[in-house]
Amino acid sequence: MSKSAEPLAPECCAPLAQSRLPREAAGNLSQAFKALGDPIRLQLMSMIASADGGEICVCDLTPAFEISGTTISHHLKVLKESGLVTAERRASWVYYRARPDLMRRLSALLDPGAI
Amino acid sequence: MSKSAEPLAPECCAPLAQSRLPREAAGNLSQAFKALGDPIRLQLMSMIASADGGEICVCDLTPAFEISGTTISHHLKVLKESGLVTAERRASWVYYRARPDLMRRLSALLDPGAI
Repeated sequence: MSKSAEPLAPECCAPLAQSRLPREAAGNLSQAFKALGDPIRLQLMSMIASADGGEICVCDLTPAFEISGTTISHHLKVLKESGLVTAERRASWVYYRARPDLMRRLSALLDPGAI
Repeated sequence: MSKSAEPLAPECCAPLAQSRLPREAAGNLSQAFKALGDPIRLQLMSMIASADGGEICVCDLTPAFEISGTTISHHLKVLKESGLVTAERRASWVYYRARPDLMRRLSALLDPGAI
């Protein structure tokens, strides 16, 4: 079985400030938040999402941190399995792109509206 | 020293899709995402944020889950320490409110914009 997050129903979910989150959706969505719940992964996510041309090579991500390539690879795997990024291998390198659909969904979920 | 998150600078931070997140901000913001990175806490957050009148009693949160009150209390403590909710004791009960400022900040951070 793949560890990747299952796709959510398109209509899921209303902002947290509007209605109680269905239990079935909470597991999937919390996996994405958990992926962002680490300082290195959050920085990686920002480098991927803000990359010129919409993608960035792992070879440009690794030198930005004072930790091993193996650890960076682990963090990128967590981001990928949460559905926040996609990865494509071309020649010797892997290139990462953010998935705006899931980012948009999480952003809408946290919108406090009129609280 | 308090375990609560330090306040972020008011100007922090641009959406992840716009620019690289400063390292100093990543620790604080990732703590909030980590707090949301659990299915029970995410459901608790939605119950608090969507509560009528803007607040909810712990006595109304606990019966909604098939886990112990002690575990619920632990999860509520994590949400509070991340800065996502406030807690106020009145008589025998503790009442929780969402903090829209931090919700709005996290929501804006994840806005993919034109990706």
